[in-house]
Amino acid sequence: MRKIHVIGIGAGDPDQLTLQAVRALRSTDVFFVLEKGEVKGDLTRLRRDMLATHIPEGTYRVVEARDPERDRTAGGAAYSPAVGDWRAARADIYERLITEELGEGESGAFLVWGDPALYDSTLGILEEVLERGAVAFEYDVVPGISSVSALVARHRTGLNRVGRPVQITTGRRLAEGFPEGVDDVVVMLDAHRTFRQYAGEDIDIYWGAYIGTPDEILVSGPLAEAGPRIERLRAEARERKGWIMDTYLLRRNPGSGER
Amino acid sequence: MRKIHVIGIGAGDPDQLTLQAVRALRSTDVFFVLEKGEVKGDLTRLRRDMLATHIPEGTYRVVEARDPERDRTAGGAAYSPAVGDWRAARADIYERLITEELGEGESGAFLVWGDPALYDSTLGILEEVLERGAVAFEYDVVPGISSVSALVARHRTGLNRVGRPVQITTGRRLAEGFPEGVDDVVVMLDAHRTFRQYAGEDIDIYWGAYIGTPDEILVSGPLAEAGPRIERLRAEARERKGWIMDTYLLRRNPGSGER
Ligand SMILES: C[S@@+](CC[C@H](N)C(=O)[O-])C[C@H]1O[C@@H](n2cnc3c(N)ncnc32)[C@H](O)[C@@H]1O
Ligand SMILES: C[S@@+](CC[C@H](N)C(=O)[O-])C[C@H]1O[C@@H](n2cnc3c(N)ncnc32)[C@H](O)[C@@H]1O
Repeated sequence: MRKIHVIGIGAGDPDQLTLQAVRALRSTDVFFVLEKGEVKGDLTRLRRDMLATHIPEGTYRVVEARDPERDRTAGGAAYSPAVGDWRAARADIYERLITEELGEGESGAFLVWGDPALYDSTLGILEEVLERGAVAFEYDVVPGISSVSALVARHRTGLNRVGRPVQITTGRRLAEGFPEGVDDVVVMLDAHRTFRQYAGEDIDIYWGAYIGTPDEILVSGPLAEAGPRIERLRAEARERKGWIMDTYLLRRNPGSGER
Repeated sequence: MRKIHVIGIGAGDPDQLTLQAVRALRSTDVFFVLEKGEVKGDLTRLRRDMLATHIPEGTYRVVEARDPERDRTAGGAAYSPAVGDWRAARADIYERLITEELGEGESGAFLVWGDPALYDSTLGILEEVLERGAVAFEYDVVPGISSVSALVARHRTGLNRVGRPVQITTGRRLAEGFPEGVDDVVVMLDAHRTFRQYAGEDIDIYWGAYIGTPDEILVSGPLAEAGPRIERLRAEARERKGWIMDTYLLRRNPGSGER
């Protein structure tokens, strides 16, 4: 039986690998690396360096494939179908990789950024490949340090306040309104600096870009003051590197804006 | 200057330590282990075993102290003040440990279960100790694999569905109603099996107890069917071991129960 490990590798700092992840790396014959266009070349390099650090050379193979781009132009109501097509296209690729590149009795691995549980499609795609029934395999999941965990650790703060909830959401959702019933909200996948929408409220922001990497930038403070600073640093960094990954926690002060 | 590491050690599996955590363990002179009563003796043992595995004997000290019990009888409206007293009592202890047990220029560490960012008071207490001003120290936070991450990895599922939010909350909060605006809810600190309250709804549950340890129990399925099974297994396990730690994800099917 073919085996697949889905391995969370942390969100930027190679030392965020767990011992369990290192063991899984060492028991893997073939690594599948899906390239997401040039801007992410840095991230592919980080994965290759990880392998070189932890596994003796010559004991593993790396297979690269091109990850189909998601049609982001569709937008709005068409968002879900576009995601659906994109998942099907990825399932085709994953199925081919597993069938053609992994021998019977071999172990393959997908290295997932952060924690495979957060805003990542690998598990859904593997389930789809299994459902199609063209190839059989076993798989397991190795949890990783998410960018969310890394963000708050660097800011030395918690996700929740005592006895209270925390929500993790996307920039797109935050644009529709501040989530109901929570005052602590982590925002991922926000290309539009949606925090600007809440600049008038009594909210603290804990922001981080390229967390865990040598390019890491951290800013925290009241949104009204920190917001403009984040906008400036973010634009500069994005210009310099050609891409940006950022995440933030919005912490609304109790009483303010609560209905 | 005294240094403190707040180190997330994962939620049960010693292999969930990160390389960063192992490095931090190795650079620590004094470990502070706070005993939370006999029922948690197993967890103290796990911490001691971790140290023995990763650090050469004779190169570190372990200082144990008794963690004051929280007054859980207060309940209801009195909840927050009780937590306040308890934090002050703990701050006294932490202050004493750092002042008396850690030499100038030495490094101390608190080993935090799971991820220090989730339902843990260590960071808050250290901030309180610093504010009091009686002792100065630097501190950093090493993120860990939370029980939330470990739960969904073992169930090979994600926390969020595509483009949708996830909330992490407590049993106490869930008892007040299903959170607004989310269909994926992780529940921690639930002594009352509050999921029973939602047995009539179209919800899937992914439940785990003692996750990552040899006693791990996992159950998933539609709440109506899985719920009674969980209740039975939970009662048996609790009886057998004398204590239980469990966490679950409730995944409400879209459309059902949504207002
Ligand atoms: C597709 S999601 C993947 C999340 C990943 N599975 C995790 O656990 O962090 C990508 C988003 O994660 C966040 N992110 C990932 N790595 C990051 C980093 N090093 N610094 C800041 N944000 C990061 C950003 O919000 C980005 O838009
Ligand atoms: C005080 S909170 C600490 C959470 C911890 N900081 C973390 O990141 O997992 C304790 C709660 O965590 C959950 N928990 C911790 N370890 C667990 C485990 N091994 N299995 C199941 N639940 C666990 C339970 O819900 C428990 O009530």
